[in-house]
Amino acid sequence: MRISNVYVRNFLSEFLGTFALVIFGDGAVAQVVLGSSLGAADFGGFLNICFGYGFALMIGILISGGVSGGHLNPAVTASMVVLRKLKPVMAPVYIAGQFLGAFFAALVLWGVYADAIHIAEKAILVDGSEVKYTMATAGIFASYPMNNEISTACLAFDQILGTALLVIIILAVTDGNNMKPNSGLIPLLIGLGLAAIHLSFGLNAGAAINPARDLAPRILSIMGGWPEETFKEEGKKVRDYWFWIPTVLPFVGGPLGGLIYYGMIEMHHDGDKI
Amino acid sequence: MRISNVYVRNFLSEFLGTFALVIFGDGAVAQVVLGSSLGAADFGGFLNICFGYGFALMIGILISGGVSGGHLNPAVTASMVVLRKLKPVMAPVYIAGQFLGAFFAALVLWGVYADAIHIAEKAILVDGSEVKYTMATAGIFASYPMNNEISTACLAFDQILGTALLVIIILAVTDGNNMKPNSGLIPLLIGLGLAAIHLSFGLNAGAAINPARDLAPRILSIMGGWPEETFKEEGKKVRDYWFWIPTVLPFVGGPLGGLIYYGMIEMHHDGDKI
Amino acid sequence: MRISNVYVRNFLSEFLGTFALVIFGDGAVAQVVLGSSLGAADFGGFLNICFGYGFALMIGILISGGVSGGHLNPAVTASMVVLRKLKPVMAPVYIAGQFLGAFFAALVLWGVYADAIHIAEKAILVDGSEVKYTMATAGIFASYPMNNEISTACLAFDQILGTALLVIIILAVTDGNNMKPNSGLIPLLIGLGLAAIHLSFGLNAGAAINPARDLAPRILSIMGGWPEETFKEEGKKVRDYWFWIPTVLPFVGGPLGGLIYYGMIEMHHDGDKI
Amino acid sequence: MRISNVYVRNFLSEFLGTFALVIFGDGAVAQVVLGSSLGAADFGGFLNICFGYGFALMIGILISGGVSGGHLNPAVTASMVVLRKLKPVMAPVYIAGQFLGAFFAALVLWGVYADAIHIAEKAILVDGSEVKYTMATAGIFASYPMNNEISTACLAFDQILGTALLVIIILAVTDGNNMKPNSGLIPLLIGLGLAAIHLSFGLNAGAAINPARDLAPRILSIMGGWPEETFKEEGKKVRDYWFWIPTVLPFVGGPLGGLIYYGMIEMHHDGDKI
Repeated sequence: MRISNVYVRNFLSEFLGTFALVIFGDGAVAQVVLGSSLGAADFGGFLNICFGYGFALMIGILISGGVSGGHLNPAVTASMVVLRKLKPVMAPVYIAGQFLGAFFAALVLWGVYADAIHIAEKAILVDGSEVKYTMATAGIFASYPMNNEISTACLAFDQILGTALLVIIILAVTDGNNMKPNSGLIPLLIGLGLAAIHLSFGLNAGAAINPARDLAPRILSIMGGWPEETFKEEGKKVRDYWFWIPTVLPFVGGPLGGLIYYGMIEMHHDGDKI
Repeated sequence: MRISNVYVRNFLSEFLGTFALVIFGDGAVAQVVLGSSLGAADFGGFLNICFGYGFALMIGILISGGVSGGHLNPAVTASMVVLRKLKPVMAPVYIAGQFLGAFFAALVLWGVYADAIHIAEKAILVDGSEVKYTMATAGIFASYPMNNEISTACLAFDQILGTALLVIIILAVTDGNNMKPNSGLIPLLIGLGLAAIHLSFGLNAGAAINPARDLAPRILSIMGGWPEETFKEEGKKVRDYWFWIPTVLPFVGGPLGGLIYYGMIEMHHDGDKI
Repeated sequence: MRISNVYVRNFLSEFLGTFALVIFGDGAVAQVVLGSSLGAADFGGFLNICFGYGFALMIGILISGGVSGGHLNPAVTASMVVLRKLKPVMAPVYIAGQFLGAFFAALVLWGVYADAIHIAEKAILVDGSEVKYTMATAGIFASYPMNNEISTACLAFDQILGTALLVIIILAVTDGNNMKPNSGLIPLLIGLGLAAIHLSFGLNAGAAINPARDLAPRILSIMGGWPEETFKEEGKKVRDYWFWIPTVLPFVGGPLGGLIYYGMIEMHHDGDKI
Repeated sequence: MRISNVYVRNFLSEFLGTFALVIFGDGAVAQVVLGSSLGAADFGGFLNICFGYGFALMIGILISGGVSGGHLNPAVTASMVVLRKLKPVMAPVYIAGQFLGAFFAALVLWGVYADAIHIAEKAILVDGSEVKYTMATAGIFASYPMNNEISTACLAFDQILGTALLVIIILAVTDGNNMKPNSGLIPLLIGLGLAAIHLSFGLNAGAAINPARDLAPRILSIMGGWPEETFKEEGKKVRDYWFWIPTVLPFVGGPLGGLIYYGMIEMHHDGDKI
């Protein structure tokens, strides 16, 4: 039964790792969003999401790092191709695993919180509207800008910057000529790095910086009865079709971060250093 | 005086480890529940419980990991039997230690917070009722659904999912062919994994996912004067007899998670890899 | 100039380590207490103190662990003597360093927050009273019971239990036959253990569990103008002279915890194990 | 293209490391400041800043530690010169990299939060004032005293103490005869140490303790349209020209901390110890 085909193994690894990233990460968002709607207790605010997504990435890399390297993000995979750390032919396999893992995680998350979402939505809808779900709970599955007045330029820069910083962290942690953490410490350090990105760059639009994490659950949400505004917010001209920003721009930011770390640090290492 | 019998040693190890898990974990719940009743200061909300239970498991594994492996959860023990990582004959010894350790921890916790519970209950009971304690403080000892309207199906799925994720984390962290953390880092990583489960899946019903942690202190609470609703909530048809869900379903979720990790990651490792 | 005398070196190490423990730990208390009085911003609640004291112990052990073992607590020193891990003749040197380090830390802390304390006290005193400082800020320097109605029995049990758990954590982390963390990881693990004690057992009376941490700054506070209630609370019969509880009972709890870990785990290790 | 010149490599390393420190650290401040102005959700309080700056330093050291040692702070560089751990001729290169990295980080941060700042300022300015930005958002870029009544003496002591403690932590963690953490763990331990400094000494004036972190973004803020009060607060006699305190006094505190650790711990190590 053992699969020796490296494509299949990497697919399974990226699938299960991204599944863990999204179910824990979006689960933390769900707990904060639904907890504040239901008012049962103090289920916390954005700090929970920072640690929730940080530990989610830690767990995802613990699951997949030893097999496929634990990218769990198409923009990271693209960066590794650009830096010649991954063969281009492998990239589609990784990205397929990431999108499918993220989609399946969103599906499972919807299932486990189906009743809580229903209760929270009832609390919000006061009329007998036919709308099944509203934007009030759509943020569980995908990121949205905090405010209508944030410009497309700021939002685009936000996603490019966040992804660039993530790739810089990943390259620094795994650079065999820098601080050289043991392999078992790597998932924690990168996870805390993602927590830091959420602590600092979650304000504009939730720090998605990962096309698989953002787009796949967003597709689930429109399929599951959330309104069309998940993809298109009518009447809000500035960020019409916002969804393309966290879908496309991480592919710009990731390789950019990779080139910055390579150009400023990695390429200058003395090969003879310890 | 040294005991060389491996059954006794493993029993003592699981007893003390689970004692630590429950006294720290339920202690963190107690501090939040009683702190908000007594209003003395800002003793925090669910975030404290997330870190409290996470560090509790870290401490429990530090105490017991080098002797018995630090299961501290009958569902983890069952999963290890299913995966042939523990001899079946050893399982009852482990589970006995876990239940007794959890029960004794709840007893000690009741003692140390006896007066604080009394004061909090006085603050709640305004009439001269004979009821000794109310459900307001029962949540210190066992988990309860957040809301009457959450269906049995969601609650069952919640416990299965949480336990499956816990076992996936444990197997990934201890997999000799994955990220291979040093043994001393393992308790921290699994502990932060449990914190993540609380950050993401604490909303429906508190993320018990451990029959020993949940049932043994629940028995103490009904013995100690809390109402029958600890086991049976009359008039709430949906979740009558809720207690069986966190008692039985982790035994489904744990092995399921084990099979998922084994089937998707572990069985495909190349034996010749470093 | 190098001192080769091991008594002097251990004294200096315990002095500087306990100085760090108390200035960071009581500093975190000060920031929460004064922050909520001054209302400048959201300076947080007890969760800050949990992490503050946890990281404080981590720093103290990083400073002193490689020289004196990083006890930083007379009750830990007493436990090590009982378990024959420290020569009795060394204990007074350790304890002297701990008390003096804690006192000096409290003095420095008073200096750095002198104005903030003054402003906070002005906000509280509305009349032209002669009292210099009030009990409102005394909690920066020493622990006090949360509530007058908590009995002496509960408070005594609280301090015994907390110290026993601390010593169990220390022995587990440093046990060469258990999970064996690398020496550099030990300060973090024990520090997070102290954070856990604060998360779970901070409610009754602040989790002092350390005579040096509690008594030395308390002495400073009465010398510095805080009222006599720092040592004696008149008219509150239940906890008159509360200060002896965190001063004396950790010496009971620490060795008790040591015997529990030794008797249940350490003495049964197989000497031939890896 | 590889640069073998050690001055250039160290400059690039300190530049990128300090860039990461400031963009993550000041980013966490921005998220709290703007989040509370905009009221979109619970974006947290000072605890976020504590972890935000702690993880920021962790990331900065992961990026630069293996090349230049990861000082990221002119006061740390000065301390290393005093302790003869860095050649004096190298210091200006380090400090130039630190200031430029901090300035560039502030510029990028301003860009990514330009719209959010604009919206927050609109919410504050109710009249048609010509002032572009106000002091309400100046705290994103530089530290300010919490309160007009805190004396210069307390503020000066605050910066000296905080920097001394930071350098003590750095020396303890990197001392080859103390707890000896693996190199990969060092960034986390020092980062949590900075988090502890913020947890305990953030109240008086935000715990800048780093001339590059504080002065360079402050210069950006006055250039960017924030008022002159960023450098001079007219009519507030006590802390006129506050900015020199976090700019100059860390150069006193850092070497002082270095001498304390060296004099009390490091110089007494037995050279023959393991």
